[in-house]
Amino acid sequence: MSGQFTLHPDRLFPADPATRAIARELHAGIANLPIISPHGHTDPAWFAENQPFPDPASLFIIPDHYVLRMLYSQGIGLDELGVPRLDGGPVETDKRKIWRILAENFHVYRGTPSYLWLTHAFQTVFGITEVPSKDNADRLYDIIAEALEKPEFRPRALYERFNIEVIATTEGPLDDLRHHRKIRESGWKGRVISAFRPDPVVDPDVPGFADNLQALGRLTGQDTATYRGYLQALADRRRYFMEVGGATSTDHGHPTARTADLQDEDAAALYDRVRQGGALADDAELFRAQMLTEMARMSTVDGLVMQIHAGPRRDHNPEIFSVFGKDKGGDMPGPTGYVDELRPLLARFGNRADLTVILFTLDETAYARELAPLAGHYPALRLGPAWWFHDSPEGMRRYREQMTETAGFYNTVGFNDDTRAFLSIPARHDVARRADCAFLARLVAEHRLGLDEAREVAHDLAYRLAKTAYRL
Amino acid sequence: MSGQFTLHPDRLFPADPATRAIARELHAGIANLPIISPHGHTDPAWFAENQPFPDPASLFIIPDHYVLRMLYSQGIGLDELGVPRLDGGPVETDKRKIWRILAENFHVYRGTPSYLWLTHAFQTVFGITEVPSKDNADRLYDIIAEALEKPEFRPRALYERFNIEVIATTEGPLDDLRHHRKIRESGWKGRVISAFRPDPVVDPDVPGFADNLQALGRLTGQDTATYRGYLQALADRRRYFMEVGGATSTDHGHPTARTADLQDEDAAALYDRVRQGGALADDAELFRAQMLTEMARMSTVDGLVMQIHAGPRRDHNPEIFSVFGKDKGGDMPGPTGYVDELRPLLARFGNRADLTVILFTLDETAYARELAPLAGHYPALRLGPAWWFHDSPEGMRRYREQMTETAGFYNTVGFNDDTRAFLSIPARHDVARRADCAFLARLVAEHRLGLDEAREVAHDLAYRLAKTAYRL
Amino acid sequence: MSGQFTLHPDRLFPADPATRAIARELHAGIANLPIISPHGHTDPAWFAENQPFPDPASLFIIPDHYVLRMLYSQGIGLDELGVPRLDGGPVETDKRKIWRILAENFHVYRGTPSYLWLTHAFQTVFGITEVPSKDNADRLYDIIAEALEKPEFRPRALYERFNIEVIATTEGPLDDLRHHRKIRESGWKGRVISAFRPDPVVDPDVPGFADNLQALGRLTGQDTATYRGYLQALADRRRYFMEVGGATSTDHGHPTARTADLQDEDAAALYDRVRQGGALADDAELFRAQMLTEMARMSTVDGLVMQIHAGPRRDHNPEIFSVFGKDKGGDMPGPTGYVDELRPLLARFGNRADLTVILFTLDETAYARELAPLAGHYPALRLGPAWWFHDSPEGMRRYREQMTETAGFYNTVGFNDDTRAFLSIPARHDVARRADCAFLARLVAEHRLGLDEAREVAHDLAYRLAKTAYRL
Repeated sequence: MSGQFTLHPDRLFPADPATRAIARELHAGIANLPIISPHGHTDPAWFAENQPFPDPASLFIIPDHYVLRMLYSQGIGLDELGVPRLDGGPVETDKRKIWRILAENFHVYRGTPSYLWLTHAFQTVFGITEVPSKDNADRLYDIIAEALEKPEFRPRALYERFNIEVIATTEGPLDDLRHHRKIRESGWKGRVISAFRPDPVVDPDVPGFADNLQALGRLTGQDTATYRGYLQALADRRRYFMEVGGATSTDHGHPTARTADLQDEDAAALYDRVRQGGALADDAELFRAQMLTEMARMSTVDGLVMQIHAGPRRDHNPEIFSVFGKDKGGDMPGPTGYVDELRPLLARFGNRADLTVILFTLDETAYARELAPLAGHYPALRLGPAWWFHDSPEGMRRYREQMTETAGFYNTVGFNDDTRAFLSIPARHDVARRADCAFLARLVAEHRLGLDEAREVAHDLAYRLAKTAYRL
Repeated sequence: MSGQFTLHPDRLFPADPATRAIARELHAGIANLPIISPHGHTDPAWFAENQPFPDPASLFIIPDHYVLRMLYSQGIGLDELGVPRLDGGPVETDKRKIWRILAENFHVYRGTPSYLWLTHAFQTVFGITEVPSKDNADRLYDIIAEALEKPEFRPRALYERFNIEVIATTEGPLDDLRHHRKIRESGWKGRVISAFRPDPVVDPDVPGFADNLQALGRLTGQDTATYRGYLQALADRRRYFMEVGGATSTDHGHPTARTADLQDEDAAALYDRVRQGGALADDAELFRAQMLTEMARMSTVDGLVMQIHAGPRRDHNPEIFSVFGKDKGGDMPGPTGYVDELRPLLARFGNRADLTVILFTLDETAYARELAPLAGHYPALRLGPAWWFHDSPEGMRRYREQMTETAGFYNTVGFNDDTRAFLSIPARHDVARRADCAFLARLVAEHRLGLDEAREVAHDLAYRLAKTAYRL
Repeated sequence: MSGQFTLHPDRLFPADPATRAIARELHAGIANLPIISPHGHTDPAWFAENQPFPDPASLFIIPDHYVLRMLYSQGIGLDELGVPRLDGGPVETDKRKIWRILAENFHVYRGTPSYLWLTHAFQTVFGITEVPSKDNADRLYDIIAEALEKPEFRPRALYERFNIEVIATTEGPLDDLRHHRKIRESGWKGRVISAFRPDPVVDPDVPGFADNLQALGRLTGQDTATYRGYLQALADRRRYFMEVGGATSTDHGHPTARTADLQDEDAAALYDRVRQGGALADDAELFRAQMLTEMARMSTVDGLVMQIHAGPRRDHNPEIFSVFGKDKGGDMPGPTGYVDELRPLLARFGNRADLTVILFTLDETAYARELAPLAGHYPALRLGPAWWFHDSPEGMRRYREQMTETAGFYNTVGFNDDTRAFLSIPARHDVARRADCAFLARLVAEHRLGLDEAREVAHDLAYRLAKTAYRL
C-alpha cells in the first residue's frame, strides 16, 4: 500500500485538544532556533570537500544501520542492499535496484523513527510527500537523484539550509583532523568541530591496540612504552583536538560504565600487561575502567567535557561482522549499571562543579533507578539525551517521564542527533523538540508547571542547555 | 458492592474523542476476523469428546491459576476453592459454595485482566451483565449451570461460536495425540492442532527425566542411551507431531534463555552425565541451553516454528507445590537476559531466514533493551506477544510502546491467548485487538502513521501475522 | 523568571475533559478524608515539645535531602546551604541568605515533586501564590518567618489543621521513646505512634554495631552475648515499642531484600562471628538476611506489621558523608531482586494470612516482574506505595499501571508519606490521592471499571487500606 504522507504541523503532539494547543504554542517559540549538534558522526570530509552526495541509495540506505538492520531482519541480505564486503566480493551495485528494495518494503518501518526521519527528509529536502512503494520507487529515485546534482544539495548548502549553528564530528585519537583544518582554512562560516574519541588507544580489546599505542607515541613524540609517557601522549592529543579540531568534548564508547581508581604503580603495571600481551582475564575491562577516571582527571585540567556512552555489545552477529564489518546493525544493548560502576570516578571527581561528565545509556531501567539519582546529586554529572535505540518519540517520552522528577530539566543537556545520516539531522531535532514540547504541554495541562516556565524550559532544552553543557 | 457492568463498545479505547474515533474505525475493520490461536493450553479431549463443561466453578475457578492466585493472596485457601490435593485429602466439593467465594470477593479483581475476561465471558456467553456479588451469586450460578447443559455450550459449538479458525494445544513429547487423531477422524471441521513441547525429555530438572528418556526410546525405537539415538528420537517425535497432530511449532519453557553450541563430543558427554545421574552443578542448565540450539537445528530441517518461553521460576511456593502440585499460581517471573544468552544459537542459526524462532519474556525490561534490537536485526527472530502476567491492557500497551520503534510491527507475530481457560479466549483476543487499535489510533492521531497504513497493520496484527509466522 | 502559581483544583488530573470530570468526581469523594500516615520520619519531639519551627530555611531547606541534592547537583555547596559539618566547621548561618539561594534557583525544581510539595505548602500554609525568585525572595522569607511565630503554626496546631488521624514516626531499637510517652501523657488528642526500626542492632555494617548490642543487653536485661538472649532482647524491645510507643509496625532498611532461614546452630554461630568481629566476607549480608526471617517470625507472635525497605546504596558520596554525615542526598538506588531473595522467608511464613509483610522498592523494574506476582499470590505479602525517588506523579502512575493488573488494588496498602518534612505531608497525600483518582478515572473512561466501583477503590486507597494493613 502506498499513500500520501504530508508532514502534519501537529505531528507528535498529544491528541487532547487543550494539551495540543499548549504544545503548539510552546513549539512555535522554538521551532526556528538554530540546531546545536554537539555529538554525532557526520563525515568532516563532506564539509571540507563539499562534493555532491552520489545517489539516493548511497545517501539513505547503505550507510544507515537503522535502515539496514530492519530490512535485514526481514530476510533481505546486506549484499542485496549494496553493503560492501570486507573481502571485496560482489554485492549489488545497481543503486536503483537497492532503492527499490527500500520502497517496496517501506511498510516494515511503520511505527519506527526511521519512518519519521526518512519521510521528513523526503518532504523537507526533496518535496516528496508520498510514502515510498513499489509503484513510485523509480519516480522518487529520479527526483532525489536529480536534486543531488544541484549546488543547493551539496553538504555546505544543506548545513546552512538546516540552520546548523555548530556540529561536532567524532574522530579517533590518531586522526590528523585534516578535514577540520581544511574547513577552517576555507573561510566557510560553518562551524564543524571534532570530538576526541580515544577508544582505539584506551580499549585493549580494539583490534590493533598495540600498534595504535606505537602510532600514538610517534605522533606525539612521547614514550608510550611507559604509562607516564602514554598519559602524556593522551594529554597532548587532547590538546591537539582542541587546537586543530576545535574540540570541546571527549567521547568514550565502553561496553560497561565501570570505572576504577588504581594506585599509580598498579595502573602502570596494568598498562604494561595490556600493552605487551600478558593481560589477565579482567585486565581489558579494568584498564578501560581506569582510563575513564584518567580521562576525567585530564578534563579537570583541559576543560574538555566528557561523554560516556556505555552499554553496547558490539558486533553481536559474528557472520555479519566477519563479512561486512562494524556498524551494520549487529550491535545490541545489554544490562548496564551505573551506581556501583561509576563510584570510583565519582568518589575522586564527582564533587567537582568545574567538570562535566555526560552519561548515556542503552538500558532504560537505569533512568529512574540510577542515572537520575546520580545526576540529581553529583555536581559533575549531566544526563545525555535518549540514545540510539531510544532516540524516538516513545523513547524520548520515557526519558522525560523517568528522568525529570529526580534530576529535573537542568541536569540534562538538550538533544544529540548522534548520527552519520546527515539528512536525518533536521528530522531528529524536529522529533526531539516536538517530543519535549509534548511532555511540557502535559505538565502545563495538568497544572504541574506554569506556561511561562514551560516556555523557558522548551527554549533551554532545544538550544541553551546543549550550548552550555558542551561549552560551545 | 455489586452493579451492572455492560461491555461498552468503546472499551479499552483512549478517552480522547478524536483518538477514540480512529480506534473505533480501525477496530470495526477487524472485530469480526476469525481467531487464530497459535499457542495455548486448552485440552484436546474437550473437542474430541465434546462433553458438557461440568459446572460454573469447575469452568471458571478451579483450573484458572489467575483466578486462584488472587483469591489465595487474600487469605482464601486453595482447599476452600476446591483445588484437589495431591494426597487426595478433603477439599471443598460444593461447587456452589466455591462460586460464592468468587462472587463475594469479585472486587479483588478490579483493575486486573481477570476482571475483563470473566465479565466478557459472563456477558457474551451467558448474557450476564451484573458484576458478581454476594447478593447475586446463587442466581448467576444457576444461569451458568443451566446453560452448560445445553448443546450450544458444548466445546465444539463454542469453538464455532467463537469463530476460531485454528487452535493449537500443547502436548508433551510422549503424548500419543489420541485426542487429536480422534478429532481429525471425527469429520468435525474445527482445526485443533498440537504443538511439540519437549521439556520432559530435554530438561534434566523435570521429575522423572531418566524414565522419560527410556519411554522416548521405547516410543521411537531409538536407542536413547546414546546422544545420537536421543536426537534421532526427538526428530522422530517432531515428525509424529506434525503428521498426527498437525503441529507447526515447538514450544520450550525454560527458566532462562541460555543457549549453547557445544562440540558433538562434549554434548554427548553432557548427555551421558544428565542421563545417568552424574551431573555437575551447571549441567542441567547447560543441557537445556544445548538443546535449544539442537531444536533450532531440527527446525531448519523439518520447518517447525520454535517458541522460547523463558523466565519463570516455577513452583516458588514449596507448600503449595507439595500439597496441590503445579500450575496453581505459585510461579514467579525473574530477571531474564537474551542478548548474551541467545548468542550461541544466533551465531549458528540466527541468519537463517527460513527459520523462525519466536521469543517470549516475563521480564519487560528486555523489551526495548534486548528483544526489539535482536528481532530488529536477526532474520530468524520474531517477537511473541505480551505474555502471562503482561497479557493485559497495560501490558500490551507497554509491549507496543517499547517494541515497535526498534522492531517495527513486522517482526511481531500477532496475538497468543496461551490459556487453558477456554471461555476466556474470545475475551483475550478482544482485549488484544482493542489494545492494538488503541495504540495504532494514537500513532494516527499524532500523525505518525497514515490511517490507511494503520488499517493494514491492524489487520496484520489481528490475523495475518499469526498465520504467517506460525505457518498456519 | 518568576510568576504566579496558584494551585489549580484540577491539578494532576488527565487533560482529556471526560476523564478529568471523572477524576474530579472521584477526588471530591475523598479529598477531605483524614490523613493516615503509617510510615514516616517526623520528629516526635515536635509534638512533645510543640515549639515553633525556627525559620524558613531550617524548615524547608536544611533538613530536606530532596531539596539539598538538587541544589548540590547544580554546584551549590552544602555549607552555603547551612548544613552543619560533622567537625563543627563554619557553614552559612544567615538563614535569609540560604533562603535566597533556594528562591533564585527555584527553576531547577521544575518538573520535580519538590516543586509540587513546596508550592503546595507555601500556598496552603502561608498563602503564598508566587513562584519563589530572586525578586520576591526576601518578601516570601518574611511572610513565612512571621507566620512561624504564631501559635497556629506550631506542630500540634498544624497536625490538627492537616487533618491527621494518626502519624507514625520511626525510632531505633535503643530509643527510650520519651517523646511518645510525653505526648501520650500530655492529654493532647493527636495520635503519634512509633515504628520499630532495628537496623542498628541487626545490621553488622552499622557503625557501633557491637556497642549497640551491649546497649541492647543493658536495656532489656538479656544476655546479648548469646543468640538466644539477643533474640529475646529484640522481642522485648518490640513489646516495649508496642506498649510505650503504640507501635503497630517494624521497619527494615536493607541494601537488598535477601532473606535466609538458617538452622538455629548456624544462625547462632553467625551471630557470634558478626558480634565478635570474626565475620566472613558475606556474613553481614547473611546476618541481615537471617534477621528478616527472625523478624517475620516475631511478627507472627506479636502481630507487628513488617515493612521491608530494600535497595538503597547508602552514602554513595564519601566526601559528603565524611564532611556532613548521613541523609544529605547522597544515597543511591541500585538493582534489587525479590523473587529469589525473599524465597527463604516466604517458604517459612509466606502462607500465613495472619502475617503482613509490606514490600518497598527503589527498583521499578521489580514492579511488574517480581513484586506484583509475589503479592498477587502470597497471603502474607502486601505492596508498599511508590517510594522515595518514585513518590511523585509519574512514579505513582507507573506504580499503578505496573502493579494493578497482577496484584490488584487490594494487595496494596494505600499511601505512605515517608517524610521528615512535616509541611510536605498534606501535599504528598494530595498528590497521591490525585494520582490515584487520575488512574482510576482512566479505567472508568476506558470502560474497564464501573464508576461506583472506582469510588469505592478511591476511598480504599486514600484511607481504608492503610488503616487495615497497618492495623491502626
